[in-house]
Formats: sequence, structure tokens, C-alpha cells
Amino acid sequence: MENDNTIRRLKTIEGHLRGIIGMLEQDAYCIDVIRQIQAVDAALNKVSTKILENHLNSCVITAIKGNNVKERERVLKEITEVFEMSNKV
Amino acid sequence: MENDNTIRRLKTIEGHLRGIIGMLEQDAYCIDVIRQIQAVDAALNKVSTKILENHLNSCVITAIKGNNVKERERVLKEITEVFEMSNKV
Amino acid sequence: MENDNTIRRLKTIEGHLRGIIGMLEQDAYCIDVIRQIQAVDAALNKVSTKILENHLNSCVITAIKGNNVKERERVLKEITEVFEMSNKV
Amino acid sequence: MENDNTIRRLKTIEGHLRGIIGMLEQDAYCIDVIRQIQAVDAALNKVSTKILENHLNSCVITAIKGNNVKERERVLKEITEVFEMSNKV
Repeated sequence: MENDNTIRRLKTIEGHLRGIIGMLEQDAYCIDVIRQIQAVDAALNKVSTKILENHLNSCVITAIKGNNVKERERVLKEITEVFEMSNKV
Repeated sequence: MENDNTIRRLKTIEGHLRGIIGMLEQDAYCIDVIRQIQAVDAALNKVSTKILENHLNSCVITAIKGNNVKERERVLKEITEVFEMSNKV
Repeated sequence: MENDNTIRRLKTIEGHLRGIIGMLEQDAYCIDVIRQIQAVDAALNKVSTKILENHLNSCVITAIKGNNVKERERVLKEITEVFEMSNKV
Repeated sequence: MENDNTIRRLKTIEGHLRGIIGMLEQDAYCIDVIRQIQAVDAALNKVSTKILENHLNSCVITAIKGNNVKERERVLKEITEVFEMSNKV
């Protein structure tokens, strides 16, 4: 199931983050910590992309095929918003 | 017309970029140049978001309402791809 | 102490991430999950910036004031590399 | 000379941007336009990284080796600021 896969990935990222906290507790080199944070960042982006892909292939199709124009507009506006935000984080 | 608006914005950004080249020709301070490049970056992201918004409200609706499953899949895959790339640039 | 502050922030982010996993386990709306992941992303970027700031004001100053040219080059190269990566994640 | 190289790269990017405007004038496919804008974005990031690298190896070294503490703080603060912004654009 798609959701299980996403949860598994996020749990791995959570473990990664705990590892970074451990690095800081042992006074790891700053740049090594930044690089690990950037790796977590990249991993989170992959998860977001996967969630968006599922969303497009389910909710978005349903909303567009449906007759509720307001709902359709809402769903499309959300896509635009997360795209805009993805350029900023 | 939507396209005219986008073209006008990109021409403004082109002018901004020429201004940055002028700064470099006059040996402007490095950090000021980087900041201007980041401003161009942010402006380009806004244009991309606007184009995506138009695309969702035209081609994507048409493709999803249509009967061509392959075409629908292609259009949704493209959205996922530009979202993924937006996290990287 | 600076490190303690960073550790505290990362623990907060870890809690945020666990919250997102909880959302998925309860089948939260995809877009809400993506937005929360983007919030985690933004919080991680702030932590990275803080770590870099500390690094510049300690190791980088020491390396540049020191007489080891190779060490200085290494330290400056690392700054360039994390900056380059920050544009990609 | 380093500056000439940067100017040349930015002129190439300016040409790329003009090409994108041409695409829009001929009603190119939205997603193709977004992809080209993302390519410009990535090229600009490379230029910023190159400028930062030069800056670190010149002004930053001078400021840190110098005796003006305020100047040193200013220069290091700027690095932190462009790093922070690079996470947002």
C-alpha cells in the first residue's frame, strides 16, 4: 500500500535525524552536520514528490472529473501553492 | 491575455539580468551580485508558478476529462516531474 | 551553549516529523502532509544556517588566521560546497 | 580573468532567457517552458556559487586576516545571509 511505503520512508528519515542529533551531542564537525541535514532535506523532497504523485492520480482526477467546480478549483489551487512553496524551501 | 503577461514579466527579468552583467562589468561587490542573482531566481520561480497555474486550468483539465488514459498519465507525470525539479533548483 | 540550542531545535523538528508520520497513519489529506513536510524543510534550513554561522565564527576564522594554506583552502571549499548544495535541496 | 568568465556565463543565460521568451511568443507547451526556466535557475545557481567561491578566496580572507573586527563580522554575516537565502530561492 502506498501510504505504508511513505510511512516507512519517513521513519527512516526520522532515524537519520536522530543520528544527526547524536552527531551534535558528540561535537561532530559543523560541515558534516550541515551535509547530513541537506541529505535529510533531499530525502524529504522525494517523499513529498511521491505523495503529490499519488494525490494527482487519485483526488485530483476525482475532483476534475466531478461536477463541483469549486472543489476542482480548490484542488488545482493547492497544487499551485505547494509548487510555489517547493521553490522556497 | 495570460501569455502576454508572462512574456512581459520575463522581459523585465531579462532587463534585471542585463543590469547584473553591468554590475559585474563595473566590478560591483560580489555579495551584491549574488543577492541580485537570487532576486532573479525568485522572480523566475513566480513566473513558473503562474505558468503551472494556467497549465493546470487548461491542458490538465482537458486531459483528465478526456478519454485518452495515456495522455492523462503523461500530463500528470509531467506535473510530478516539474514539482520534483522545483525542489532541486 | 550554541550546540545545545541546535540540538533542542532538531529535537523539536524530530517531534514535528513524528507528527507527520501520525498524520499519514490516520490517512490525513495529502496536501496537508506535503505542507507539513515543507515546514520541516524550512525549519531544517534555519538550523543549517545557524550551524554555518557558528562555523564561520569559529573554525573558519581559525583556519584563515592560521598558517596552513591547505587547511584554509579546504575550509573555504567546504563553504562553497554546502552553498552549492543548498541551492539544490 | 574570473569576472570575464562570469560575465560570459551570464550572457549565455541571458540568451537562454530570450529563447524562452521566443518559446512563449510561439505558444510553446507550458511544461517545456517551465523546464527551460528551471534550467536557467540551475545555471544561475552555478554562477552564484562561482562568485561566492571567488569572494571567499579574496575579500573574506582579507577581512579575516585584517584587524577590523566590525568588518570581519560584516563579511561573515553576509555569507550567512546569502546561504540562508539560497535555501529559499
